Amino acid sequence: MNKKMIYRIIGLVLGVEAILLLFPFVVGLIYQEAAMCFLLTSLICAGLCFLLTRRPPENKTIYAKEGFVIVALSWIVMSLTGALPFVFSGVLNYVDALFEITSGFTTTGASVISAIESVPKSITFWRSFSHWIGGMGVLVFILSVIPLEGNNRNMHLMRAESPGPIVGKLVPKIKSTASLLYTIYTVMTITLIVLLLIGGMPLFDALCNAFGTAGTGGFSILNQGIGQYNNLYYEVVLTIFMILFGINFNVYFLLLMGDIRAVFKSEEVRGYLGVIFVFIALITLNLWGYYDSFIEALRQSSFQVASIITTTGYSSCDFNLWPQFSKTLLFVLMFIGSCAGSTGGGIKISRYIIMLRQIKNTISHMLHPRSVKLVQLDGKTVDNSVITEVFAFFAVYIIIYLLCIIIVSFDGFDFETVTSAVASCLGNVGPGLGLAGPMGNYGMFSATSKLAMTLAMLFGRLEIFPLFIAFIPSVYRHKSSNF
Amino acid sequence: MNKKMIYRIIGLVLGVEAILLLFPFVVGLIYQEAAMCFLLTSLICAGLCFLLTRRPPENKTIYAKEGFVIVALSWIVMSLTGALPFVFSGVLNYVDALFEITSGFTTTGASVISAIESVPKSITFWRSFSHWIGGMGVLVFILSVIPLEGNNRNMHLMRAESPGPIVGKLVPKIKSTASLLYTIYTVMTITLIVLLLIGGMPLFDALCNAFGTAGTGGFSILNQGIGQYNNLYYEVVLTIFMILFGINFNVYFLLLMGDIRAVFKSEEVRGYLGVIFVFIALITLNLWGYYDSFIEALRQSSFQVASIITTTGYSSCDFNLWPQFSKTLLFVLMFIGSCAGSTGGGIKISRYIIMLRQIKNTISHMLHPRSVKLVQLDGKTVDNSVITEVFAFFAVYIIIYLLCIIIVSFDGFDFETVTSAVASCLGNVGPGLGLAGPMGNYGMFSATSKLAMTLAMLFGRLEIFPLFIAFIPSVYRHKSSNF
Repeated sequence: MNKKMIYRIIGLVLGVEAILLLFPFVVGLIYQEAAMCFLLTSLICAGLCFLLTRRPPENKTIYAKEGFVIVALSWIVMSLTGALPFVFSGVLNYVDALFEITSGFTTTGASVISAIESVPKSITFWRSFSHWIGGMGVLVFILSVIPLEGNNRNMHLMRAESPGPIVGKLVPKIKSTASLLYTIYTVMTITLIVLLLIGGMPLFDALCNAFGTAGTGGFSILNQGIGQYNNLYYEVVLTIFMILFGINFNVYFLLLMGDIRAVFKSEEVRGYLGVIFVFIALITLNLWGYYDSFIEALRQSSFQVASIITTTGYSSCDFNLWPQFSKTLLFVLMFIGSCAGSTGGGIKISRYIIMLRQIKNTISHMLHPRSVKLVQLDGKTVDNSVITEVFAFFAVYIIIYLLCIIIVSFDGFDFETVTSAVASCLGNVGPGLGLAGPMGNYGMFSATSKLAMTLAMLFGRLEIFPLFIAFIPSVYRHKSSNF
Repeated sequence: MNKKMIYRIIGLVLGVEAILLLFPFVVGLIYQEAAMCFLLTSLICAGLCFLLTRRPPENKTIYAKEGFVIVALSWIVMSLTGALPFVFSGVLNYVDALFEITSGFTTTGASVISAIESVPKSITFWRSFSHWIGGMGVLVFILSVIPLEGNNRNMHLMRAESPGPIVGKLVPKIKSTASLLYTIYTVMTITLIVLLLIGGMPLFDALCNAFGTAGTGGFSILNQGIGQYNNLYYEVVLTIFMILFGINFNVYFLLLMGDIRAVFKSEEVRGYLGVIFVFIALITLNLWGYYDSFIEALRQSSFQVASIITTTGYSSCDFNLWPQFSKTLLFVLMFIGSCAGSTGGGIKISRYIIMLRQIKNTISHMLHPRSVKLVQLDGKTVDNSVITEVFAFFAVYIIIYLLCIIIVSFDGFDFETVTSAVASCLGNVGPGLGLAGPMGNYGMFSATSKLAMTLAMLFGRLEIFPLFIAFIPSVYRHKSSNF
């Protein structure tokens, strides 16, 4: 275990955070609200960064083990420090602040704040900005800007932070891959901001809403969510961009390379768009009577489906009041999620494709025990170890879900609230149903439940295994362990 | 595809059913209530049996494919005909009757009847008796009594009907294995009946309650469930026997062979008892305040935990009124289930053990990509194909669950009712929460929902794959298919 490299990279993460904290500091200066809490936090992060990166390690090699641990600890440390401005400004206590900023970084968007419009603008900005930071990942950012010494093994970092069953490089060099990803991400975000500004949205709102969309986060800056604008143009633009940010970024890279058919060739993207179409159709039909107009039903259904499947979590209406059928469809969407390699969360479409194909092969094997069939995705054979990882991921995901609803149920809230709130946090969605619905918030839960859901959000964003590994004591021992 | 053998064995199943229907016929004669509907159904089954078994097939060989199809179709045909007495006696319409008897055969115990005490005794008897028939399985029964021509391939039948990831023979001959299982099953059932009689329970009640316990079914013959007796002795006896019937019957065989340590050696049994202990402890602590007495809390908690984990579904109180924490624990238990090779349903403890061990190995493989570790159960290496089957089973189980809650949610009942009712049917438990709780019933659901849940019960009992295979059209084609 190369502990010195772990300290060093976590130090770098804190350094990056120190710089990022200057943005809300500037916002605070502009609006003359809660600026100093960000400067103070920034200084703390910078100080920790200095301490941790003081001595460059001689051995710069890291292996898979270090990769997982670095990613998990970085996210924990980022959240622990990122929560401080909420506390320093007196907006939240520490547990609530930790919940809020973890919800931000993990791009969940579940909030404990009931009236966001009465909170300082700098705090609102930091919340939304944290979505943008967490969407593509802070280690991917570091890989893209800092020439990390060492070798190609930094791939371990990227693999541990990027969502999806198979993480590949776009170009041979990791630094270039990371830069490319961040460039695509930034260009798309700026495009969205411009489109929102064209529609007449104030700059501050356009920035925050774009951050939440790009990271598929979903923190609202208005008490009633996006629906409060009551603006069809915004909703259409956001619906389209939510769906776009839920698509595997490899597809955009291939598009840039001139491979226009890449979008249609990707089986995951086709599956993703297919699921979106089916769910929008079903919910629209169900809501037709509820809204008295097909167009209105289609509008609300499209926005909410795009929001939940991409795990953004914006709301353009109080879908908690919808008929049970539509609500249940949204609940099920929380267990589906977006594409791998996107900024979205959840179990991911490609995992479902791999599982369904392996299930088909399993049945085939039961019928013809001597037959051996391989699972393919986009024409390539999926490695057996990847298939096992996918099924293991799904099983642990469900087991963590069941454990978490047990813990949260202790607060005594109704079944719908508990089961949907946990599904939403674990899937990095944001709103649930019942009391945790789009017009409610997570403030009423106990500290224990909030901490459990904070952990669930991290499990969801880091796709479980890195966090597990960071909690195994023997991983930190010098020699190889039982694991 | 050897269709003639399929017809023949389904014919035999109907023949057995014709004989079994004579028992409720006799009950009807004794109580002078609704006897003829059983005679009529028995004659129909006998007639169908005659038609299907008229010509003995020349080729008696069956393969895995036929095994799955025979088991799936047998259960469907058994349910389709077993529903008739409810219709002939005017108690239920056909969809309700099909739900009720499938719930019986699959040992679910979910009922559409709100006041069972006003139903003819013969009908009540048939319901409970169907649990006993379905518990060990009717094909296992046929294998145990009829010298099926053909060869050792009849193992396919047993494997397809018996629950659990690994189905082995107790003794080299299948006929002897099946006989042994039924002997153990019968002796244990008789012991239970005697114990209930000793406690003063009327014979009719003792028979019905024992059938429901032995098959881990759970149909109640009283409007308020077992709690209506308000008899501690009954509850203790039933709690113990529910737990006993949830244990892998291989253990009893080994006990008979004199291997007393077998119970403690079986990792599945230890896991099963461990889960029971933990859930009883947690619920007892949670209910301590609710019942004002530790003993009462322990009594209710033990009975309900034993009832739900074994997927029996008896209730000694209205646990729907319990605090949310205890209710959620029961909900989670519905996703656990009993031991493989028992009469209980659910996902099964051994599947969880295999999954958790493979998950550990997967993490280990992520840390040390060159390491290869094998999963062991009871000291034996679990085959890779079994591991894949276990994970595939779990994934399909959850996917079917999500699809089914979507369908059932269309009725508009609350989230708790829908999600728990489906979990209960798929896990072959019986009662759910909310409106489908122990004091409620399934009568209010629409015909569509009832049919969906009927299918869910069959999926649960037959452990998904046989039913899937029976629904693949290409399986019935002469030559080998895509599958």
